[in-house]
Amino acid sequence: MIEENNLDGLISEAIAQINFPASPAELYEPIRYTLSLGGKRLRPRLLLMAAQMFGEKPETALMPSLGLEVFHNFTLLHDDIMDEAPLRRGKPTVHTKWNSNIAILSGDVMFAEACRLMSKAPAPALNQVMEVFFKAAVEVCEGQQYDMNFEKREDVTIPEYLEMIRLKTAVLLGAGLQIGALCGNATSENASLLYHFGCDLGIAFQLMDDVLDVYGDPEKFGKQVGGDILANKKTYLSLKAFEKADSAVNTELKHWYTSREMTDEKVNRVTAIFDKLGIRREAEQITESYYFKALDHLSKLKEKGFDTSAFEIFAAKLMQREH
Amino acid sequence: MIEENNLDGLISEAIAQINFPASPAELYEPIRYTLSLGGKRLRPRLLLMAAQMFGEKPETALMPSLGLEVFHNFTLLHDDIMDEAPLRRGKPTVHTKWNSNIAILSGDVMFAEACRLMSKAPAPALNQVMEVFFKAAVEVCEGQQYDMNFEKREDVTIPEYLEMIRLKTAVLLGAGLQIGALCGNATSENASLLYHFGCDLGIAFQLMDDVLDVYGDPEKFGKQVGGDILANKKTYLSLKAFEKADSAVNTELKHWYTSREMTDEKVNRVTAIFDKLGIRREAEQITESYYFKALDHLSKLKEKGFDTSAFEIFAAKLMQREH
Repeated sequence: MIEENNLDGLISEAIAQINFPASPAELYEPIRYTLSLGGKRLRPRLLLMAAQMFGEKPETALMPSLGLEVFHNFTLLHDDIMDEAPLRRGKPTVHTKWNSNIAILSGDVMFAEACRLMSKAPAPALNQVMEVFFKAAVEVCEGQQYDMNFEKREDVTIPEYLEMIRLKTAVLLGAGLQIGALCGNATSENASLLYHFGCDLGIAFQLMDDVLDVYGDPEKFGKQVGGDILANKKTYLSLKAFEKADSAVNTELKHWYTSREMTDEKVNRVTAIFDKLGIRREAEQITESYYFKALDHLSKLKEKGFDTSAFEIFAAKLMQREH
Repeated sequence: MIEENNLDGLISEAIAQINFPASPAELYEPIRYTLSLGGKRLRPRLLLMAAQMFGEKPETALMPSLGLEVFHNFTLLHDDIMDEAPLRRGKPTVHTKWNSNIAILSGDVMFAEACRLMSKAPAPALNQVMEVFFKAAVEVCEGQQYDMNFEKREDVTIPEYLEMIRLKTAVLLGAGLQIGALCGNATSENASLLYHFGCDLGIAFQLMDDVLDVYGDPEKFGKQVGGDILANKKTYLSLKAFEKADSAVNTELKHWYTSREMTDEKVNRVTAIFDKLGIRREAEQITESYYFKALDHLSKLKEKGFDTSAFEIFAAKLMQREH
């Protein structure tokens, strides 16, 4: 089995080798820029690991793995327009560096190129791969729409929030794993087990992001700690706090979550409320419960004799991350 | 063979039956709205006719034909944002009726749904269908980018313009025909002949649009005659006029094509220049030359014994259209 680091090398080399045309430059320059910004490349790596677990060479699934990464970057590009985000991975977003029209259209081309790469899946798996991929693509958009809707709603429930992050973040991890499995000739049932492993791990991953945003080590987190609080963003932590707060605390929370203040005081006061209500512990517990659910799906594959150790290590590392 | 009108019925019924989810409404309501605005449905009809010519039931290619139509409508939706167009088919555009974010994201979902429908092509053809479709999808975006670039350039040549309309309009007609042929188990060579028929016919179609915009019967054209002139849009006619104009006429043309005036006088004066320079005749000649090129590809299929009459009738009608 190829080492994980070698998979990373394989992926970054292949991404660097995707040959976009020179012209029209307005279309392809932003795509090259976006892909050069890097990122963890978690999705393609998981996809290749899945193909490997079912005994396939990672090279067989390489094009679909790139398709998944290009698709993921396309969603970030369009999300950044909608969220009016100035920065992505510490660099200017495409709509800031160029303009919105260029960001819309180069995003569309990225989506098409992602499909093109995905359609290079091995012929016997192609039909199912396409089905899984496009279902996930639609769901990611649904997740983004719910996320935007939530900004304007004051009655978002925790189950609704969990469903939103499942759609926006988790299904694509699941789909990538399922696609890798299908490229490795896995049965539908086994591929589906990996899908559910990815979904639950993805939810845990996002919940952990919510925790790290408030409780991460500023030295290691890489983003501003308390960024979600400053942006009045609904997260598991804020929703849980509103749920548990008595009337007085609720009023204080509402004050902060409707204020446009961008001060340390705001972060500190909201964090103090979280602390008082034991929100961190609640958030860590639910994160862990999704992590264990993920491992449950994996153990079913282990019982069937598959070597799931690479995924166990991967998931454990993800749960220990500090950024 | 199913009559052309029956194909239309099959298509409109199937489009009406596409079952989009109710929620999130912000995402699916604009899609339902866009598809309800109608249009000529030329692309799916051509696709089904192609499958039929190779002896396949149109039903076999129905899902890909819907995919093509949904994709086409997605490109219009995103183009309308970029062009800041207030109306489409006489109704408010999605970004006007809702907002830009909703138009971006519901467009993205339409693209994904289009792919989903396209991937229901018959299994033996799937690989090639995907390749043809995504190549065309990328090229349509390239065409849109060139079109936007041309707005800011004063040195656009006629060959550049022809290449732009080939990408923006013609390749999708060609791709639809090729996909229909592949769904009908045509050989690559025969499918490719239909592709080139569609491309050349598509260029003729767009050039005719340019002519109709200036010389169409206002009663029948459905849009404002002279709309391209008022919008200072580069078309075959305007580029040819600049090419043929002497220095004095060139100055006059430049005056009008940099003016923001939206008057009948502007339309009349520019049309008078076109008349003096014989531009209509030039435009009709090149339109006809692409029409004949298209028929040449078709005749090669006829020589092989295929019944190309439906396409001949279709192309002839397209060339006689008045709107």
